[in-house]
Amino acid sequence: MNKQVKLAMRPVGMPTEETWTLEESAIPTIEEGQFLLRQDYISLDPAMRGWMNDAKSYIPPVQIGEVMRAGSIGEVVESKHPNFQVGDAVTGWGGVQQYIATDGKGFYKVDTKLAPAPTYIGTLGMPGMTAYFGILEVGKIKEGETVLVSGAAGAVGSVVGQIAKIKGCTVVGIAGGPDKCKYVVEELGFDACIDYKNENVYKGLKKAAPKGYDVYFDNVGGEILDIALTQIRMWARIVICGAISQYNNKESVKGPSNYLSLLVNRGTMTGMVVMDYTKDFGTAAQNMGMWMAQGKLKSKEDIYTGIENFYTTFQRLFNGKKMGKLVLKISE
Amino acid sequence: MNKQVKLAMRPVGMPTEETWTLEESAIPTIEEGQFLLRQDYISLDPAMRGWMNDAKSYIPPVQIGEVMRAGSIGEVVESKHPNFQVGDAVTGWGGVQQYIATDGKGFYKVDTKLAPAPTYIGTLGMPGMTAYFGILEVGKIKEGETVLVSGAAGAVGSVVGQIAKIKGCTVVGIAGGPDKCKYVVEELGFDACIDYKNENVYKGLKKAAPKGYDVYFDNVGGEILDIALTQIRMWARIVICGAISQYNNKESVKGPSNYLSLLVNRGTMTGMVVMDYTKDFGTAAQNMGMWMAQGKLKSKEDIYTGIENFYTTFQRLFNGKKMGKLVLKISE
Repeated sequence: MNKQVKLAMRPVGMPTEETWTLEESAIPTIEEGQFLLRQDYISLDPAMRGWMNDAKSYIPPVQIGEVMRAGSIGEVVESKHPNFQVGDAVTGWGGVQQYIATDGKGFYKVDTKLAPAPTYIGTLGMPGMTAYFGILEVGKIKEGETVLVSGAAGAVGSVVGQIAKIKGCTVVGIAGGPDKCKYVVEELGFDACIDYKNENVYKGLKKAAPKGYDVYFDNVGGEILDIALTQIRMWARIVICGAISQYNNKESVKGPSNYLSLLVNRGTMTGMVVMDYTKDFGTAAQNMGMWMAQGKLKSKEDIYTGIENFYTTFQRLFNGKKMGKLVLKISE
Repeated sequence: MNKQVKLAMRPVGMPTEETWTLEESAIPTIEEGQFLLRQDYISLDPAMRGWMNDAKSYIPPVQIGEVMRAGSIGEVVESKHPNFQVGDAVTGWGGVQQYIATDGKGFYKVDTKLAPAPTYIGTLGMPGMTAYFGILEVGKIKEGETVLVSGAAGAVGSVVGQIAKIKGCTVVGIAGGPDKCKYVVEELGFDACIDYKNENVYKGLKKAAPKGYDVYFDNVGGEILDIALTQIRMWARIVICGAISQYNNKESVKGPSNYLSLLVNRGTMTGMVVMDYTKDFGTAAQNMGMWMAQGKLKSKEDIYTGIENFYTTFQRLFNGKKMGKLVLKISE
């Protein structure tokens, strides 16, 4: 049988157990030009929350009754497609379901001998690509600059900071809790990390970089974006990648009150969506694979098991109870 | 005698009559290397409100007891300076005072045969330069794009919109009241104008440009910035030039709740300060002078008289009771 997690209703605020239903149906049969993918791992990302809202965004919302959208990786178990053979490892937008029959559009083959499968939906997947293009193309970091990253222990932030270190920047992270901060500094090599749950972020930022920040990579929005705005240097670039603190708001999003710091400092705040860089994913994967092989870029996945645990695992995105890239193993 | 308006106290919220004092003193005597400027006109600009706050900004605040900072234009009446002769028309940061003795730093000569003196502190002065570099260098407008300007009847906004028309854009303005909107469309040639005091701005923006806006030049901040954010197109540029709606707030500035539209649309929001472009002022003045001569760029000054009327004239910046560039004639 094929277990699928479908969107049952549009959540207001934080999703609940009723937001999705787990359904079982027959494993799909493939037609000419299709292959059947057994999906082993799915990626859990904060952006998924946005896809559940019935609002204009960079991709259409998931419809009620549809399989929940998610990045995935698995193995071809049956094929009538000329380019995909049984045994191929394939990643793409497979959604939260154990099997999918597809014509291969939006899927591509990867080599799980070079890196473990979960890494292809983490550092070598969308989160890693987001970090790579966000900090290099939008943040435009230069050697010697000071970079601030929120969500520093997360799938995107951890890669952002490591790339900035590779490029010769001073890197300060913001993360929730002493364990995450320790991980960010000791394992990932950030120069400092501010524990927003236990420290005064304003003072922490000032202490870590008294001259301020040239680039702020924002994954969280809210208060932290506002504080970061007070600490930017002249000609600073703020990369708006996400706003996890605001995704489950029942009221309107908190706008950055200190946005006029952009004027004082001739700063710029730019939104980014990773899909815009698809044509350069190959180069990015090569570079990041090389850095991983050289030990300069570490990838950490936090893997849970069981498609029936989708909801409780999803919650970890927002309650902070995870370390690194959140992944769910869904094959049995 | 020399009448001077000095900052008496730091206002909280809207300045009052007590904010400044009018003082009289002897006309200053000049030393070797100085000249004496009789100041005929001063420029009144919303930015002056920001200079009165004791806060880090792009220039130091005016200190209590100092002459209020203002752009000015006047005539040299005495000179011991090799480069400035009696009779020269000179513009610079003369402040709100009838006479100033200066070594000429920050002042430059202009030709009042080519344009009337008040124009040199308006369209050919800081407001015009702000418009020119803001829309061309920061807004990066291209022919065929749709441009939105708030404060459209003001000193900066009116020039922004006209330059955008000259460059082949569709231009929509936002202004307060039917007279200003009529002026913006009929005299300045904007394609449309939304009267925010009498119209629903959201509906007005949608109607004027159903496909949205490529560039938004923001002089006002607050609600209008928030509404504009909902109407931007992909890859839009928002120029943060000012936030007149927020300058007299007693509480914190209203941040733009809809800033995540930057993410959805890959937009960018950039702050600008005209002083950064000083080296190119000559080119800008040439271009704008040419457009004025060709009748493509209109300049309108709203001139009041009497240094003793500084406070009541200053109020017009914020109560909207003016049309075009606000100027005060201070020579007697």
